[in-house]
Amino acid sequence: MKRSFWLVTLILTLVFTVVATAASPFEGNPKEEYYMVTFASGIEYWKGCFAGMEDAAAQLGVKAIYTGAPLSDVNQQVTVLEQVIAKRPAGIAVTCSNPDGLRATIDRAIEAGIPVVTFDADSPLSKRYCYLGTGNYNAGAMAARYLAELIGGKGEVAVSTVTGQLNHEERKTGFVETLAREYPNVKVVSVGNDNNDQTRAAVLVSGFLQAYPNLKGVFCTDALGGVGAATAVREANKVGKVRIVSFDTDKGTLDLIKEGIIDASIAQGTWNMGYWSMMMLYSVRHDLVKPVDGWQTKGINPLPGVVDTGTNVVTKENVDAFYMD
Amino acid sequence: MKRSFWLVTLILTLVFTVVATAASPFEGNPKEEYYMVTFASGIEYWKGCFAGMEDAAAQLGVKAIYTGAPLSDVNQQVTVLEQVIAKRPAGIAVTCSNPDGLRATIDRAIEAGIPVVTFDADSPLSKRYCYLGTGNYNAGAMAARYLAELIGGKGEVAVSTVTGQLNHEERKTGFVETLAREYPNVKVVSVGNDNNDQTRAAVLVSGFLQAYPNLKGVFCTDALGGVGAATAVREANKVGKVRIVSFDTDKGTLDLIKEGIIDASIAQGTWNMGYWSMMMLYSVRHDLVKPVDGWQTKGINPLPGVVDTGTNVVTKENVDAFYMD
Repeated sequence: MKRSFWLVTLILTLVFTVVATAASPFEGNPKEEYYMVTFASGIEYWKGCFAGMEDAAAQLGVKAIYTGAPLSDVNQQVTVLEQVIAKRPAGIAVTCSNPDGLRATIDRAIEAGIPVVTFDADSPLSKRYCYLGTGNYNAGAMAARYLAELIGGKGEVAVSTVTGQLNHEERKTGFVETLAREYPNVKVVSVGNDNNDQTRAAVLVSGFLQAYPNLKGVFCTDALGGVGAATAVREANKVGKVRIVSFDTDKGTLDLIKEGIIDASIAQGTWNMGYWSMMMLYSVRHDLVKPVDGWQTKGINPLPGVVDTGTNVVTKENVDAFYMD
Repeated sequence: MKRSFWLVTLILTLVFTVVATAASPFEGNPKEEYYMVTFASGIEYWKGCFAGMEDAAAQLGVKAIYTGAPLSDVNQQVTVLEQVIAKRPAGIAVTCSNPDGLRATIDRAIEAGIPVVTFDADSPLSKRYCYLGTGNYNAGAMAARYLAELIGGKGEVAVSTVTGQLNHEERKTGFVETLAREYPNVKVVSVGNDNNDQTRAAVLVSGFLQAYPNLKGVFCTDALGGVGAATAVREANKVGKVRIVSFDTDKGTLDLIKEGIIDASIAQGTWNMGYWSMMMLYSVRHDLVKPVDGWQTKGINPLPGVVDTGTNVVTKENVDAFYMD
């Protein structure tokens, strides 16, 4: 008995030493809770974001929890965010239904020592540590290059967009300016407002087709615009003659890419938004990031200010990878 | 003996199960080598970048190695990068002395299955997975807001910059446009070229002071410009009357902030560049990031495209945190 006692003690000590040495700072506590807070919380788009957050949380051994305001209503979202803060979570990733409406609540969380990042839609004047979302100008530039190559680097194109909404304006500007700089023989003949409505987009693009019989392509900055454009091009019997580059990866868009009516769509990095939000929140919570010593008391941001989560071109070749399960 | 044998076996099995379950995907192999490749490899600026990479590597249990071309010479850097690729490292973070000169070499590394990110200076048309660097427009905007508040929101200011160099032009534009938008009573009366030279900056800013006796502030987009501006302001006996906001955290700049001649400087997120480069390279090498299934064969980028590593305002209050050991 005595010998076995010493043997067991020795082995336990050795094992404990090995485990203690190897303990990774990226092994979280399963009780740590990180929240994702959205608005219009039922829409499909957020699923991709939360999938990335859940994947990172699983790798880190912590818990990711999804919640949000059912409507796209800033007051409702403030209430939800306040409820989350009251739980004293380990960190919060929030997308903002309104840039200024959530500012005070975000600042309160930061002041209470809860790390906060924003994703998809920012609150730039708040004290959030980082914003992770699509660089919309770059997304428009990607669409411009893809469409220009598709039509052989010359010809007339048009844009169907949501006039006055910042992300759509940026996509349009990136598209128009990139063509002007890199494809001088591609001419943007018209830009119209589809107001994020499928029927309006169909009417708008039908008008483009009538006014510009040589039209070679259409860029739609919103998913419903792309579906509407597809209707117009199909009805005019111009499939393959007028190329369509759309936006996002709604099921309707992906189906039309499979059918060959829409040529390509610009997919946002939704999984990236969730994954890197989680990594960044964890890194602050666990004091892993030290851009300078004592950042906490010196007005210094512990994280990069902005992550452009990037975009990818979806085509017939890779469309299957973009369907959500 | 028999009893102790079973006891030991039982304990080992239990411990093994616990350890195996807890094994973190962020525990790397100490033999894994990640390289940072720079140009002008001896300058102080890169130390901050590599410190971040080393900190992340230590947390991940892998090895970070620093190398680079001694000169700011693209051919020399291509040779160094090729030598690094020949070692088949686990990943490479490279800053590009020339956007296009390194493109083919970076693409060769990616095609050989070595993850590559760029930092500080990008090669945007290469196949690198991510670029991590300062958003220079935003950095200029930060300088504008700080200087404008310092002079009470009104008065004349001037800019000392490096004309024709992209990062400096962006800083200048961010400064000028932010003032125009947010501080209509602050007027930019002159913009001059100091060519990243301390003596030229002193002459330039002396000229500003003579031409505009009511001048309230100067923004210098480069570190040597700031030191030169300090000389000019001191010689004109206008310390405290003409405010200086400079750039970067060279020792000379920090000393002048401590003395109260330079009011503030915009610090780049060099530590962030290295830290998040390392995290991203590791995440690809260990197959932790899956924006969509099978990204490898579908032309899909596994990482966010661009990280703006951010900036912070250095003042007398927090200057001590920015000295490198």
